Parts: sequence; C-alpha cells; structure tokens
Amino acid sequence: MSVLAVGSIAFDTVKTPFGSAQEVLGGSAVYFSLAASYFTSVNLVGVVGEDFQESHLQVLQERGIDLQGLETGPGKTFRWSGVYSYDLNERETLDTQLNVFADFRPKIPELYRDCRYLFLGNIDPDLQWDILQQVRKPDFISLDTMNYWIEHKRESLLRALSAVHLLTLNDGEARQISEEVNLVKASRKILELGPRIVIIKRGEYGALMFTDSTLFCAPGYPLEFVYDPTGAGDSFAGGLCGYLANLDNVCDSTLRQAIIFGSTMASFCVEAFSVQRLRNLTYAEILERYRQFRHLTHFDDVP
Amino acid sequence: MSVLAVGSIAFDTVKTPFGSAQEVLGGSAVYFSLAASYFTSVNLVGVVGEDFQESHLQVLQERGIDLQGLETGPGKTFRWSGVYSYDLNERETLDTQLNVFADFRPKIPELYRDCRYLFLGNIDPDLQWDILQQVRKPDFISLDTMNYWIEHKRESLLRALSAVHLLTLNDGEARQISEEVNLVKASRKILELGPRIVIIKRGEYGALMFTDSTLFCAPGYPLEFVYDPTGAGDSFAGGLCGYLANLDNVCDSTLRQAIIFGSTMASFCVEAFSVQRLRNLTYAEILERYRQFRHLTHFDDVP
Repeated sequence: MSVLAVGSIAFDTVKTPFGSAQEVLGGSAVYFSLAASYFTSVNLVGVVGEDFQESHLQVLQERGIDLQGLETGPGKTFRWSGVYSYDLNERETLDTQLNVFADFRPKIPELYRDCRYLFLGNIDPDLQWDILQQVRKPDFISLDTMNYWIEHKRESLLRALSAVHLLTLNDGEARQISEEVNLVKASRKILELGPRIVIIKRGEYGALMFTDSTLFCAPGYPLEFVYDPTGAGDSFAGGLCGYLANLDNVCDSTLRQAIIFGSTMASFCVEAFSVQRLRNLTYAEILERYRQFRHLTHFDDVP
Repeated sequence: MSVLAVGSIAFDTVKTPFGSAQEVLGGSAVYFSLAASYFTSVNLVGVVGEDFQESHLQVLQERGIDLQGLETGPGKTFRWSGVYSYDLNERETLDTQLNVFADFRPKIPELYRDCRYLFLGNIDPDLQWDILQQVRKPDFISLDTMNYWIEHKRESLLRALSAVHLLTLNDGEARQISEEVNLVKASRKILELGPRIVIIKRGEYGALMFTDSTLFCAPGYPLEFVYDPTGAGDSFAGGLCGYLANLDNVCDSTLRQAIIFGSTMASFCVEAFSVQRLRNLTYAEILERYRQFRHLTHFDDVP
C-alpha cells in the first residue's frame, strides 16, 4: 500500500553546536516522505512558493515521491529558523515566516482519496480535520502535533484526535495534553481521546509505545556524531508508517518493528543537516542499522 | 560467590511531589546490599553512629547480610536531606551531616580480603583507593562516584579508576569526567582511564553499557507510581553485581542480563520511600519483572 503524507514543506535555517545551514529543504512532509520512500510509494500533499526550485523538486522526485498534490502558491515558501544548544533535545525557534503556508487549505486529489494509510503532519488541527473529511476511510491514520496547537487549539485538536489511530508526540506534549506528569498515566488518558496507539518520542532516549494491551520501549541509537536533530520526529514517522503501509498489517509485532524502522530513519536523519542523509541511503544500510538495534537491545532470558 | 559492599549508611530525609520521609534508612551500602541480597550473599563494610537502632540492623539481618564489617562510631549516623521536583531525574541536596562518616576509614575484615566481587559505593576516592590496597585480587570491582569527587578530587578518582573493572555514573558525570558532550565519545575516553566496562545510568531513561567491543541499551521500566528515586542507582548496582557474583561469570551476555536485573531492582526501589520495597520482595516477583523487561523491549527480526 502507498501512504499519503500531508504537512509542511519548508526552507530551514538551522544552527547547532556542530555547524549551520541556510535555507535548506525541510518541513514535516518532506522528512516524512523521504524516510517513507525507502519502504513504500508515497503521495505528498503540500504547498510551496514560487521560490521552490527544480533542484528541490528533484530531491523528492529522485525518491519516486508522487507530487500530484504539490501546489505552488503565490509568494514565498514557508521558512523556519532555529537554534540548538549542546542539549540537542531542546531547540529555540528564532523565526517563522508562514508565507504561502498561511493560506494553505490542503486539497486531496481525487486519486488519493481512497488512500488506506495517511500521515497528518504537524499543522493546524482544523486543517487536519478538513483533510479527514476529504479522504474516504483510511485504515491507518497517524497524526503528529506540537505544544502550540495543544495550547491554542485544544478543542480542534481533540476533534482531530477522535478520528485517528496513532498519535505521535514528545514527553512534554503528552504531559500537556493529558495534564498528567507520569507518562504511563498520561498515555492512558490520551488513549481515551481516540487514538488506539500513542507513541511518545524522547529524542536521544528513544520512543515509548502505549496501547490498551501492550507497552514497547525502543532506544535511541547512540550516535557519535549528531549534526542536526531537525526532522528526526518526521523521519521517525516516515519509517514507521512506510513500513506498516508496505506490509499492510498493523499489529503489535509489526508496530514494534515499525518503531525500530522509524528510529533507524531518525538516526540517519540527524547525521547530517537538512535531508542530506535521507537522500542516498540504501535499503541494505537501513537493514544493517535495524540489526544493530537488535544487538543494542538484546538480552537473554533467564532459566 | 559473595559480594563485598563498602559505602555509606545513612538516615535520609526526603521530599518528593508524592510524599516525604523523615530520617529513614538509606545510604549506598544499604541500598546496594539489600538489592544484591536477592542474588547472592553480601558482606557489608560501613559505619553507623550510636543512634543506629536494633530495628535498623534487623532490616539488613533479615536479608542475611553479613555485618562483621559494620563499625559503630562515637556520635550520630550520617544524615542526608534532599528534595525532588516533578522531574524526578533532578534532585536538590538540602543538608548533609557527615557525623561518624567524617572520620570513616574503612577496615576490611581479614575474612573479606579475598573477596572476588567488590562494590565501592560513592565515597571519597582516596578511601576507595585505600580499600583497594586492603583486598587481595578481586576478579570484579565496580565503582560508583559523583560530580563532587570529579570536581574536587579528580586525581584521586583517576587513580582509583585505573584499578577497577566497572564504572557506573550518570550522563552529566560521564560528560564531566571525560570533557566530552557526546556520550559515545565520553565513554570511549572513560574506557581509556582503566575500567573495561562503563555503565551510564539515565534514571527513567534506563542505562547504557559501553565496552571496547559492545554497546547495550536497557530501558527504564515505565512505572505508574514513582514515590522516591533515592537509592535507585545503588539498587541498580546491587542487582547487577549480585547477579554477576552469583553466576561468577562476567561476559557480554551475563552483563546484559545483570543490567536488566539491576534495572529491575531500581524499578522496585523507587516504588516506595526508603528501602521499604526492597525488604520483602520474592525472587518470583523479580523474575516476573525481568520478563516484563523482555516483553517491553522485544521486537522481531526482519527477513
């Protein structure tokens, strides 16, 4: 099965203790699509400005991403600028210029409306809801969000959450949305809001999956060189949803594998600025790191 | 094999968002010994004051801990007082009264000097070194330390480190001792200082083990109720060293299991104030949680 991704397409300006990058390709839909493209075919819906160049399109086209849902609006592409300190788990946004993204009203092409796997990147939850009205009946809808929407559009977010299968968010967002400090309790509350799977992303510390019946803990891959954490969460979602869509089988066992493939793609993502590392991977490299995750976490049973 | 534990014995006064406790039994040697006692026989060396009561001794005796190395000094038992905020990974020390601990010069009873497994709890590294001169040739020496000694007694600590097999410390301490932000690089530097195993304790995020040839990542157990993190690190070391000493076999496979048993004991420790939860466990409960760790981290290989 293919996966439909709706989210932002951006030019990012990023500074980390290990370097910086100016107006480089980014955005949730871009990171997601590139990561997912190693597992299945990807259809992308998003908006860019008139400054989006052929070379940027090529990055997506080279990975076979279907761009029938890519609109070009009058004006400039969405821009984000941020800085990371040595603690790469925390970042500060310096500037956000919505540009064409300000008036983005995602239109799902007719061809995509029967999609069975759908990723709703971190955008206004009213737009996420609007997308849910345009698609027919996806088997698996994954939604990402952030603190801003939890704070400023809580009711809209809760409406969207009621209709999705998987919510991905970080520790702080899980606490914020549930008003519970303890993550086990927080996740239980979130499961009551609609999603039947909650995945808490914890950056270098990995990810936790909660469902009604199971609990899974994936480590972050201990990397020697982390250049830029931007896009790690969306790359994670891309590996995860791409793997599940390709198998077309969502169960405890495949979800656990999918989280490791998501963690694998996130670990590659942060090894370079922008999408550099996600452009030219081989599936053999991905499998190799998946197996490193196996070795990293393996321990024997006791008699 | 038995394990010899040298460290502090304390009365702790602790406040967490979930309650408080006044002058309750604590200290690195106490937490370590109780946790290790579920796996092997434990010999304890430490000092208490004249206010240490029969009921406190009983807590240790009930678990079969050998107290021939327990001195009673003139004056009061060591006291520590601290407070935890909602982020249970961080604590603030409110007060430390060394009392009898100020003049503690550990004397290892002759009977213990041939010990093969030794745990040096977090005390002055000059005392740790002094203990190393008293024992003959342990096969496995585990050392714990803290930021204070890294900052104020670096040379003494490096001398002690040169003679031990395993160092346990937290993220911040690993960065401080190695002067490296990245934990992979930090651990490599620490391995050059002497220990052939470095275990980085990350509280609720679990633990990372580094050796020259392997890397292992253990999760923290996602608990719904965490009352008091005090002693978690020493309970971790107790489960770990106790399991290894009992097997009398230290290799990659048993170290991984030992870390999970350590994590298991730490997860029990934090479920109650002081040593309450570590007093009355059954080995069946410990095995049950070990297997929950297996389920928590298991994922299938891919073809």
